[in-house]
Parts: sequence; structure tokens; C-alpha cells
Amino acid sequence: MVSTTAGKVIKCKAAVAWEAGKPLVIEEVEVAPPQANEVRLKILFTSLCHTDVYFWEAKGQTPLFPRIFGHEAGGIVESVGEGVTDLKPGDHVLPVFTGECKECDHCKSEESNMCDLLRINTDRGVMLNDGKSRFSINGEPIYHFVGTSTFSEYTVVHVGCVAKINPTAPLDKVCVLSCGISTGLGATLNVAKPRKGSSVAIFGLGAVGLAAAEGARLAGASRIIGVDLNSKRFAEAKKFGVTEFVNPKDYDKPVQEVLVEMTDGGVDRSVECTGSINAMISAFECVHDGWGVAVLVGVPNKDDAFRTHPINVLNEKTLKGTFFGNYKPRSDLPSVVEMYMKKELELEKFITHEVPFSEINKAFEYMLKGEGLRCIIRMTA
Amino acid sequence: MVSTTAGKVIKCKAAVAWEAGKPLVIEEVEVAPPQANEVRLKILFTSLCHTDVYFWEAKGQTPLFPRIFGHEAGGIVESVGEGVTDLKPGDHVLPVFTGECKECDHCKSEESNMCDLLRINTDRGVMLNDGKSRFSINGEPIYHFVGTSTFSEYTVVHVGCVAKINPTAPLDKVCVLSCGISTGLGATLNVAKPRKGSSVAIFGLGAVGLAAAEGARLAGASRIIGVDLNSKRFAEAKKFGVTEFVNPKDYDKPVQEVLVEMTDGGVDRSVECTGSINAMISAFECVHDGWGVAVLVGVPNKDDAFRTHPINVLNEKTLKGTFFGNYKPRSDLPSVVEMYMKKELELEKFITHEVPFSEINKAFEYMLKGEGLRCIIRMTA
Repeated sequence: MVSTTAGKVIKCKAAVAWEAGKPLVIEEVEVAPPQANEVRLKILFTSLCHTDVYFWEAKGQTPLFPRIFGHEAGGIVESVGEGVTDLKPGDHVLPVFTGECKECDHCKSEESNMCDLLRINTDRGVMLNDGKSRFSINGEPIYHFVGTSTFSEYTVVHVGCVAKINPTAPLDKVCVLSCGISTGLGATLNVAKPRKGSSVAIFGLGAVGLAAAEGARLAGASRIIGVDLNSKRFAEAKKFGVTEFVNPKDYDKPVQEVLVEMTDGGVDRSVECTGSINAMISAFECVHDGWGVAVLVGVPNKDDAFRTHPINVLNEKTLKGTFFGNYKPRSDLPSVVEMYMKKELELEKFITHEVPFSEINKAFEYMLKGEGLRCIIRMTA
Repeated sequence: MVSTTAGKVIKCKAAVAWEAGKPLVIEEVEVAPPQANEVRLKILFTSLCHTDVYFWEAKGQTPLFPRIFGHEAGGIVESVGEGVTDLKPGDHVLPVFTGECKECDHCKSEESNMCDLLRINTDRGVMLNDGKSRFSINGEPIYHFVGTSTFSEYTVVHVGCVAKINPTAPLDKVCVLSCGISTGLGATLNVAKPRKGSSVAIFGLGAVGLAAAEGARLAGASRIIGVDLNSKRFAEAKKFGVTEFVNPKDYDKPVQEVLVEMTDGGVDRSVECTGSINAMISAFECVHDGWGVAVLVGVPNKDDAFRTHPINVLNEKTLKGTFFGNYKPRSDLPSVVEMYMKKELELEKFITHEVPFSEINKAFEYMLKGEGLRCIIRMTA
């Protein structure tokens, strides 16, 4: 399949964030052809993740505008740059905010997915190859976001940040595996690794936490205890295998004590998906001595301090953290897509809203209101 | 082999600690026969460990005197109490300060060695069966220490705290496997699990730390970096496979930064054997992101707080702790003895002093001066 647009600038629609916190504006942008080790993708579906909103609000970070956000998406390769041999036009792909160069120590290690070259960089708004953006309006650059910028009909991504997937997988469903769902799922399946019949506490019942619960369900955990400050989330969480609920506000003592009592000594595994430092400490202290494992997923604030009595560690509790659920994007995401294709992993229940690209700001509204889990944005009519 | 003393009180010599910090006194004590699930052991060799000295000094704990200390030892079963089927008179054994009941959740778990029934209890000075001591002088009880009290020619121990070992193993060597050496060795081999060719930092080059280094050597680590505030320990440490040395006092910056620079991003594994809270934090922060594992072994103070930025965890560093090197005493110690018998594990280099029982206070002096590693105390002339 030869693309008629290969090597040429493509004019298309993109949702541009001109300023922090202001509604995105659908603009006509120019998308330059991919350079060495880059691919240009036609995005078919994208979804909104908290990280987009966090950097769009630009609270506490160096703001970089105008910028094209978006990093959960599914698309098709339009054309490839020099040196790209793994992908060809027509391939179905998921772009990912972090990458896998396959050459650094991390990529060569079986234990890490934190690629030295392509690890997430939220400050960089340009491509690695030439330090420039591939997006422009009237010759003025529009910045990239985490190397993906999927709120555009076409985008340019480093080949190391693109997972080639089963072409029969529905992109309007598997697009959510680009970020949050894989992050939560992998935290449980790859890092916490609960045994069949074990107990798992999930802190935070947003999309990532529910994906962690889904992982616990798939692993055969018998007790999946959801912990959230918002009791309204409990009903929804049952669909994801959560069997019990704890709202820390309902107790006068620290929630870790409540969980230890409920489980006769502590849960076998916990997964922290809120980013709150207190939840992180609770998640660690609520696991059983001897074998408990706590996995941190949520991103902390800059000046947070994780603090615990070291005897908790000495008593054979393990503290681990994970980034993107320890999945290596290119090597591992195709198999996560297959889990969906085999109907083991249920993605439909994460998708609560859908809007056309022209109404992308509605997706922001849903998320800001805390409504639903994932809103799919259809790029084509 | 039928013991002629079975069922009778045995009069023998024991080193009694009458008061905190005062020299032990060799006294004639009466040792009652073992009750249900207990065994009486003839101790042939014992050695002195820091924990004995710590509780003998009784700084910051509830003192319990008069008491018979001692918990690293090798001996022979003299007689067994009711219900003991695993051991018989004549068996060669190592008593252990922690136990394995084989029935609790911890004993049944493959991941834990923290037996609910027989986990170390430094406050208890009596036997579990009847809450009384088996030692007395003129009818007055002398308290036990961690269920072992091996500074006595005969002692009574719960069957769950006795590891039956190869009868051809020299007890004057393998007695050191009762505590410190297994703790350090297991911390590396069972918990840190360094890969062949990897880098390992060892904090604290006392007996436990050197045993951890020995574990790293056995695992095939290519860089074993010893960290200690006492540079004199470095020469000795080379015998245990330590390849490089860092004295934190030689630097103006935190030692974790020094180690990260030395290793281009951090060591693959670290093992903390000092109990200093700052060393614990350094040991965690010096491991490589993506795959680094830090293992805490040293016992912290009561009001210490382990503190780190949670991003260190999120960057896929793992923090683990271990107790007795994650060995289950009865199930696992026999195989550690076999490692010595196969000449893989070298125990001779840990044994720097030897004294007859009558000079046991010399062993305390060596340890208080920081001289040598292990002092073997010969119970028989």
C-alpha cells in the first residue's frame, strides 16, 4: 500500500491548546513528513487521559503552548521515515507516550521498561531527530506533547513509541490501551502479581485503579477491596471485580488499620492509583507482613515524602513502583490487545462516553466533572 | 541411641548474665527435661552475635535478668519431649532464634519465613508450653533468650526452632549459620537475587554484611561495592569478594550519589546490614531505576523513619526487607550447610577467634572492640 501523501506536508484538523486551561480550538495545521526513525500516523480514535488535562491546566509545571495534546489513541501508519523497517503504511498501531528503542540498557533488561532514549518527557515539545516540531500553522510551530499529540488527524511519532497491533482489533476500543488501562492492568499483572485466591486492595477507583482491579480479577484474586474517598464510585467498581469497598472518610483510624483488620493481618497485594502521598503510605502499610507487596502507580507531587517505619520493610513487606504497568510498548502491547481479542480483558466497560472530534472539549468537561471513565473521540465523521 | 539422662534434670555449666552489661558468670544450673514439642540439646559450639550483646547491654529495652544468652550454636539432641517425631537423640542440629511451626499461614506460604507461633520474641524469657523457664539455680528461674540460650552446656528449645543437619558437618564451623551468616547470605541469595555479572552494594562490612557479600560472590556479581565508615574493614572484605570500597566520610555528598556516579546510574542490587536509617535510605536511593532492588537487613531504632521521594519508587526501584535471610529454619538451613560441605560457601573466613567456654567474656570483649568477625566458644574442653 503506497500512500499518495508520503513525503508531502499534510494539511489536516488538529485541536490546538493555545493557552493553559482554555478550550481547545480545532485548527487546520500542517504536518511535516516523518524524518529518520519517525512515522506519520492517521489517528482514527483518541481518548482523554488525566495527564492531558494536568498539562493542559499547567498548574505547577512549565507551560508549553501552543501545543497539541493527546496520547491515548489508535491509528494507521500513513508513511514512514528513513530507517524505519518495523512498520509500513497501513499497519494498525497504538502510539505510546513512552518508548522502546530496543538498544539501551533498559530495553535490553528483562526487568525494566524505562527506555533511556524515549522515556516520557513532558517538557519536550519537539521531535528528537532535529529538535523541531512537525506541526505548524502559517509556519509557526505548534508543540508536541509526550511525543504523541494524538488530538490531530495526523501526527508524527518516533518509531520507538509505536506498537504494531492485530489489524482486526477495533481501534475504537483498543485505543484506551495506549496509556491508563495498560498502566493499571500491568501494575497488577506484571508487578503485584497476586496469586489465585488472594486479596488485593486498590487505592483509587478511577480508570487506572479499575484497570488494576480488572487485572486482579483476571489473576483470580478472591477479595478485591476498592478504596476511594468517593462512595459513588463503588457501584461502578463492582463491574470490575471489586468485591468490597472502603471509604477512608467512614473511619476514625488510618485506612491501613481498617484493611489490616478486615483481612486478618493485611492484604496480600495493594495497588496505589491516586498519587496521594497518604494513600501511598496506606497502601504500603496495609499489606501483610511476610509476603505483602505494594505497588505504586499514581504520580506524586514534587515535594511529597514517602515515610514509614523501617520495621514495616524489615517485616518482609515489599514496596515497588511501576511506570506504564511495566509494559514495554512495542514488545508487550500487542499481547495486551490479544487479551482483549480473546475476551479475557473487557475494555467496553471503561468506555463511558464518545464524542466527535469537533466536540473534543466535551471530553474535557466530563473528566473535570469526574463523569465516567474514558471518552472516545472519533477523529472521522 | 538412648540417652541415660532423658527425663531427668541435668546439672551443667551455663554462663549466666545476672545484670545488664556485667560479665557473665559460669554457674552450675539445672536444666529441666523437655516438655511437649521441646527438645533438649547438648551444645558443643556456640558463637557470639551482636544481638546477644545488644540485649545483654539492655540499652533501650526492658531488661530481663538473670538470663542465659546465646543463639548461634551447633549441638546434638540429648532427648526429646512428647510429640516430637522429627528429631531423635543423637541428631546433629542448629538451634535457631526464630522458628518454623509448619502449620501457620507464614509457614505454609512460599514467600514468608515469619512463623506466627515461633517468630523471634526478645522479650519472652520462658518456654511457650507452660510459660516457665527450664533453667534454674537453687530453684530460682534463670530466663531464656530468644528460645535458644546456647551459652549453656545443655539447653531446651522448641522443636520448631531446631534444624536437623548433615551429621558429618563440622559443628565448630556450621554453628555460625544459626544466625548472622545465614541472614546476610540469604538476604542476597534469596531476596536481592543479583544476576551474574551485576553490581551489588553492601552497606556495613561486619559479619552479616560480609555474608551478604559472600552471597553476591556466589551469585556471580562482577562488582561488589563495600560501604563502611571504618576503612580498616576494607582489607578483610576483599576475602569475601568485595571488589571496591566506599567510605561515606571521604565524600562531601550523600553516598548514594557517589554510588550512582560510580555505576553509571546506580547499582543493580544493594543490601543494607547496618541498621542505620541513613544507610537504609542511601541503600534504596543508590539502586538503578528500572530494575534496582534494595534489601534491608539491619534492625532499625524504634523511632526511625524511612523517608524518600516517592518518585524513586515510581521509577521502578524496589524496596524489600528480610528477616533471617528469608530462610525457613527447618526447611532451608540443611541446604545451607550443604553449600558449605560442597565448598561453595566458605565459613572459615568468618571465624576469627576461638575461646574455651570458661573464657566466654573474652568473646564479648572482641565484639565490643570490633575485633574480628565471629568468635567460636568451645563448650567442652
